[in-house]
Amino acid sequence: MSDPKQPESISPFGPARSTIKGSPLSEDELNKYNDFFKASLYLSLGMIYLRENPLLKEPLRTQHLKARLLGHFGSAPGQIFTYMHFNRLISKYDLDSIFISGPGHGAPAVLSQAYLEGTYSEVYPETSEDEEGMHRFFKQFSFPGGIGSHATPETPGSIHEGGELGYSLSHAFGAVFDHPDLIALTMVGDGEAETGPLATSWHSNKFLNPITDGAVLPVLHLNGYKINNPTVLARISHKELENLFLGYGYQPYFVEGDEVNSMHQAMAATLEHCVMEIRKFQKQARESGKAFRPMWPVVILRSPKGWTGPRKVDDKYLEGYWRAHQVPITDVHTNPEHLKLLEKWMRSYEPDRLFANGKISPELKALCPTGNRRMSANPVANGGLLRKPLRMPDFRNYAIKVDKPAVTMDASMQNVAKFLRDVMAANQTNFRLFGPDETESNKLSNVYQAGKKVWMGEYFEEDSNGGNLAREGRVMEILSEHTCEGWLEGYVLSGRHGLLNSYEPFIHVIDSMVNQVRSRPDPHCKWLEKCLEVEWRAKVASLNILLTAVVWRQDHNGFTHQDPGFLDVVANKSPEVVRIYLPPDGNCLLSCMDHCLRSTNYVNVIVADKQEHLQYLPMEDAIVHCTKGIGIWPQFSTDRGEEPDVVMASCGDISTHESLAAIDLLLQHFPELKIRCVNVVDLFKLISHVDHPHGMTDAEWVSVFTADKPIIFNFHSYPWLVHRLAYKRPGSSANLHVRGYKEKGNIDTPLELAIRNQTDRFSLAMDAIDRIPHLRNRGAAAREALHSAQIKARNEAYETGIDPPFLKNWTWPHTGLWKAAIPKLMG
Amino acid sequence: MSDPKQPESISPFGPARSTIKGSPLSEDELNKYNDFFKASLYLSLGMIYLRENPLLKEPLRTQHLKARLLGHFGSAPGQIFTYMHFNRLISKYDLDSIFISGPGHGAPAVLSQAYLEGTYSEVYPETSEDEEGMHRFFKQFSFPGGIGSHATPETPGSIHEGGELGYSLSHAFGAVFDHPDLIALTMVGDGEAETGPLATSWHSNKFLNPITDGAVLPVLHLNGYKINNPTVLARISHKELENLFLGYGYQPYFVEGDEVNSMHQAMAATLEHCVMEIRKFQKQARESGKAFRPMWPVVILRSPKGWTGPRKVDDKYLEGYWRAHQVPITDVHTNPEHLKLLEKWMRSYEPDRLFANGKISPELKALCPTGNRRMSANPVANGGLLRKPLRMPDFRNYAIKVDKPAVTMDASMQNVAKFLRDVMAANQTNFRLFGPDETESNKLSNVYQAGKKVWMGEYFEEDSNGGNLAREGRVMEILSEHTCEGWLEGYVLSGRHGLLNSYEPFIHVIDSMVNQVRSRPDPHCKWLEKCLEVEWRAKVASLNILLTAVVWRQDHNGFTHQDPGFLDVVANKSPEVVRIYLPPDGNCLLSCMDHCLRSTNYVNVIVADKQEHLQYLPMEDAIVHCTKGIGIWPQFSTDRGEEPDVVMASCGDISTHESLAAIDLLLQHFPELKIRCVNVVDLFKLISHVDHPHGMTDAEWVSVFTADKPIIFNFHSYPWLVHRLAYKRPGSSANLHVRGYKEKGNIDTPLELAIRNQTDRFSLAMDAIDRIPHLRNRGAAAREALHSAQIKARNEAYETGIDPPFLKNWTWPHTGLWKAAIPKLMG
Repeated sequence: MSDPKQPESISPFGPARSTIKGSPLSEDELNKYNDFFKASLYLSLGMIYLRENPLLKEPLRTQHLKARLLGHFGSAPGQIFTYMHFNRLISKYDLDSIFISGPGHGAPAVLSQAYLEGTYSEVYPETSEDEEGMHRFFKQFSFPGGIGSHATPETPGSIHEGGELGYSLSHAFGAVFDHPDLIALTMVGDGEAETGPLATSWHSNKFLNPITDGAVLPVLHLNGYKINNPTVLARISHKELENLFLGYGYQPYFVEGDEVNSMHQAMAATLEHCVMEIRKFQKQARESGKAFRPMWPVVILRSPKGWTGPRKVDDKYLEGYWRAHQVPITDVHTNPEHLKLLEKWMRSYEPDRLFANGKISPELKALCPTGNRRMSANPVANGGLLRKPLRMPDFRNYAIKVDKPAVTMDASMQNVAKFLRDVMAANQTNFRLFGPDETESNKLSNVYQAGKKVWMGEYFEEDSNGGNLAREGRVMEILSEHTCEGWLEGYVLSGRHGLLNSYEPFIHVIDSMVNQVRSRPDPHCKWLEKCLEVEWRAKVASLNILLTAVVWRQDHNGFTHQDPGFLDVVANKSPEVVRIYLPPDGNCLLSCMDHCLRSTNYVNVIVADKQEHLQYLPMEDAIVHCTKGIGIWPQFSTDRGEEPDVVMASCGDISTHESLAAIDLLLQHFPELKIRCVNVVDLFKLISHVDHPHGMTDAEWVSVFTADKPIIFNFHSYPWLVHRLAYKRPGSSANLHVRGYKEKGNIDTPLELAIRNQTDRFSLAMDAIDRIPHLRNRGAAAREALHSAQIKARNEAYETGIDPPFLKNWTWPHTGLWKAAIPKLMG
Repeated sequence: MSDPKQPESISPFGPARSTIKGSPLSEDELNKYNDFFKASLYLSLGMIYLRENPLLKEPLRTQHLKARLLGHFGSAPGQIFTYMHFNRLISKYDLDSIFISGPGHGAPAVLSQAYLEGTYSEVYPETSEDEEGMHRFFKQFSFPGGIGSHATPETPGSIHEGGELGYSLSHAFGAVFDHPDLIALTMVGDGEAETGPLATSWHSNKFLNPITDGAVLPVLHLNGYKINNPTVLARISHKELENLFLGYGYQPYFVEGDEVNSMHQAMAATLEHCVMEIRKFQKQARESGKAFRPMWPVVILRSPKGWTGPRKVDDKYLEGYWRAHQVPITDVHTNPEHLKLLEKWMRSYEPDRLFANGKISPELKALCPTGNRRMSANPVANGGLLRKPLRMPDFRNYAIKVDKPAVTMDASMQNVAKFLRDVMAANQTNFRLFGPDETESNKLSNVYQAGKKVWMGEYFEEDSNGGNLAREGRVMEILSEHTCEGWLEGYVLSGRHGLLNSYEPFIHVIDSMVNQVRSRPDPHCKWLEKCLEVEWRAKVASLNILLTAVVWRQDHNGFTHQDPGFLDVVANKSPEVVRIYLPPDGNCLLSCMDHCLRSTNYVNVIVADKQEHLQYLPMEDAIVHCTKGIGIWPQFSTDRGEEPDVVMASCGDISTHESLAAIDLLLQHFPELKIRCVNVVDLFKLISHVDHPHGMTDAEWVSVFTADKPIIFNFHSYPWLVHRLAYKRPGSSANLHVRGYKEKGNIDTPLELAIRNQTDRFSLAMDAIDRIPHLRNRGAAAREALHSAQIKARNEAYETGIDPPFLKNWTWPHTGLWKAAIPKLMG
């Protein structure tokens, strides 16, 4: 219940004002918590300022300071305050908890807590709990060769870096799904709270099942300021703030003020109340067996930015103002008065008393939980330790029957959905499928047989009429790519497995999440790449992204729905981490999906269209093809393994289809032409083996593509990407001719869009004629005929609104090649 | 005031339930509005289904249908309903309004209204208001060669396409800033409302000044379903919903139900009440001269998806369920019963009576406003018509004095901020600066002298101590790149000018907004590109993006803060629309900024670091250099205009600095070396003139880069982008050696990061030695010396935490070259 006597003031100063009253701490405890608070604050300042003299045993002089001062103090006090008070409850109630630090640059808070808990020294023995270790601990912070000012992967207990802002809550919810005993204590910065991804992620509570999932306890930190601005939520009325959280479906509990002793009591009482509420709701649901959506608690902590620092420096506000955001006093190298002020401030935290023997006293240490109950040591935050490989059905059992190549159509995506369904059925507590309301549209609805869509909102009568909703489900759908991706990241980093499905053109929405930005784990590639260097981090399941509804099927969406450039963004990432697969047919899709779900520590991107497609390879051939990643397809080739006139290459299902149809057109006109058909599944095969572990050597390149024959390469995405990957390959500069998406189009039929981009069969065949030397002159008539057919087909599409059936229903007619190829395929 | 008697039901069915009571419509009016509603609904269905027989003069047969059925009906009824009831108030109160259609695929609603208002036929005379015109109007919709199912740029009255979801509100707020008389009636879809960008954009009300800005009237359309899922906001309690909007700072007014007559009355009364509220708040603020933040009204319209359609088809729910999302009955080609059902449904809208002469009656037409008061004809939505060129101070007056090249340091960004300040001062009602809390950090705070940061939240005492906040300001800062970008797009598309500033690594957050996705104007590039084809669209100011805090200055952020790949994403866009500038120094930055602010219909990206930098060019030379876009710099060259041994090229300020220092190193070791220094400002100079209007011919390329000499190109971003742009240039495959960001780094000094990427002076000089044939052997000693110096510098940085001053403070020592070059520069 909201307290009708909530104060009107929105000032962060003064004695504690709180929704929950009470003084659970004794005088002695109060003193200890205050000492612990000071010790942690001292460490935070030490990291920012000190290169030498870590315990201030000598008077502070400029030579003790780091030459360049870096780091953020502003949010540290509030975060430390929250972390340490939750420790009391972890010990008291034996809670299983992790801490997620949402505010940007929050490392001083979490590092200092990990150091005081002892975890830091266990993981990094050189930063021991003594003066020498503290010296190293301080020096390494924001220092060349050292560690960053975010909760990077090197930070024990972190699954969330707090760099690019906005994902703390979605990560937290991802971590507690299917972890029924876990509480993710999650600091949400009030700057972060202004981002779109954070603003919508509060609604994650509509997807949390109190029986099978754990709980998130968000602490909105009204720190008051961003870099240089007040925050929106710190400057609206108390009533608006309360309404906002009631509206989001949380019961808000306020803790506001800066008077330390009363704040300790208020925070201790409030957090305990919230834990009791969480346990009460869980008990109620679990004992009754009836999942419901309670008003989960949220703490709103309003404390001054740079709390406990000097209120003013000269005549400028510091504590409780934006100037406390980063390094609080910047000119200590040149201003002796300010150096003295800093020293006085640091000494106010009593390092001599609190770190008398270079470490805190056993009495203070006793405030921390022990072992894996320490939030900095919880294995959930090193999820690879908990990861169990998926129980996988044999994907061969889902094979699409292919008697003749490119003759029968089948629905590759619907088919792989059956495999995913059975993966889901066999892994009911550690595999989930995520998507922004597109799972059905992406033809994956078979999965609902094994796990429905989680829905903790209200139910209507209609829902039983094709709704596929359930309180306990395996599919997570909210129309926020950010939230889906954040949930998946949290789920994977805490030791489980998952897959995100999305329309290809919309995946750019989460470019920055998948790839990069504001230094966090969330820039998932960066996190994984870093993890490879951090020895104690165990391998997590790969982050798997399935892109469908590809750009080549525009239907009515038109021009603005077309951008396959996500692959370019991913291809910029570290080759140690990213993998891109474009399976040409259903059996290849199965093989790739199986491979990705079994892999660890990668970001896997699979691109495949959701419509019906021609099928090319029987399962055993598909496995070989996908394992090789690239291959010559003899069943569509007429070079008999010898020197070809032209290499017709393709990558991507729709691109492959048109490339094969082009081969057919060429053979109709030039039956004697020696064509080599090449298909690429694993995009990074194209790159040099020096630059990517999947890359081919130049010798391998030549064996597939030749060194001097024209290559007509039909590609799913922007053609530049192939040029870039194949850069400096033997002959590639002169011979490699790539067709792909070139950003033209409108409301088009598939054929029309392809023609605009010259990725259609006619264009490809004409390309080949133009580039095969001995056809340049004698190919003129054939070229004319192809061009006329192309124009006719286009006109028919414009008139009827659909592609001419004879083109749409094309199949591969040269089955003789197939039979001839069989011995080779078996070999 | 919220009504304590709000009903508990969250069903969309039943007689109207509304916060505002009243029956403002007479019986006659009610009938007319119902007829108008039906006419518009008929047109919406016609667009989706009919290729022939537009008025159903014949019984409906399959050959009348489009071969492929495309389009979305689900949200059309609610949108039409809202639009037409607002028309009553436009006429009654002479309102100046635009309509923003947030839900995806909302074109049937806005197209049908534009057609009924007559605007559509005025803009496209071939779709006249008669049977023949209606035939064309129907056929073109979602048809090859026709128009899309979103409110694309071809749609009169649209500045927001509704493809990628989430930006309707930020666009609306952008449009009403500095348009004090404008009301943007904004439909927000409940699917869209789940996106992050939309969820935070409600807070735009904290940045709206009721004196100088207009108003946004949001209508949250609780349509109930997305593609295949219920929506979150339609399935929470009435109380939560109400609290949420009170919390966001709006007064919610509910209109709920499906019984048409009572819904007409409720909507008419509610919208009128809201308009009165808006006028009351504006009057109060304007008469008192005191800006305040009122509880602006929001309408929450809960109506069934596919409202007025069949409730069930066979035994499957349609109206009021997700099945009504797209084409409501899909199998009409093959199911004669369903074809009959469709015909019956369409005839229920009485086309024969309502379009008796092929068009609606004058009595119905009279329900529409006239001329520019029609929302489909408001010039605000064709903002180029309203655009006034900026009043520009002469940027030469802000020139940085450069006596000797690369000798003096200056703060280029702080300097250009003075120019921006004066642009702002001279354009106080049509220029704004946008940024996610980084304007001060980006060294642009000089602008606050001309316009403070708009802040309509509460004020604290501290704010007068360096806060730069004001209720009436010119700088817009919220920690949401999405909101900033959305505001800017709305502001520019409605005829004004603006600039977004952001840290380079964080700009990926809005990749999809700037570039593409879900077919909207918001994918700003796409919108602009389309506008070029739409003749009646007047040119708008360019969308200008200033990227600073570049990746090469990592400071304490480290690895995960590094991604310059936004340029790759932009470079994928249409060359007709995008421009990328990397000015090397302060005078070039001024020249580029001036150029960008004067330009129209482009997306301009300027990349420049915010720190102090060496200055290279006096203003007049900078103007010449920027106008050319690329140039040989004789003052740093020793080839005397003749054949060089090596071309040392650079693009980007920090890259240029290191390249020049490398030239110095080379000259120290090989004083006779003939070096040509080339600098690139306009990135698209590198591309062929065939592919981009700024591109060079091959002859121009050779004149700058030579055809056969080694080129050591130091680039700001990923090196592949240069390879891609320079692909197939004469000699580029063999000679072009590009250094750039390669995704390595950690906590680094600038030098250390450069060394990791081999973009530092030592690496570049070694590259040159390796590639100049006559140095390969005799350069060995120099190479060793350079390598040793590099290692020493690196070790020193690791020890002290800062780069060695002798490197950091390097300046160009060869001033003789400068003097020798002067006659050439003047020539």
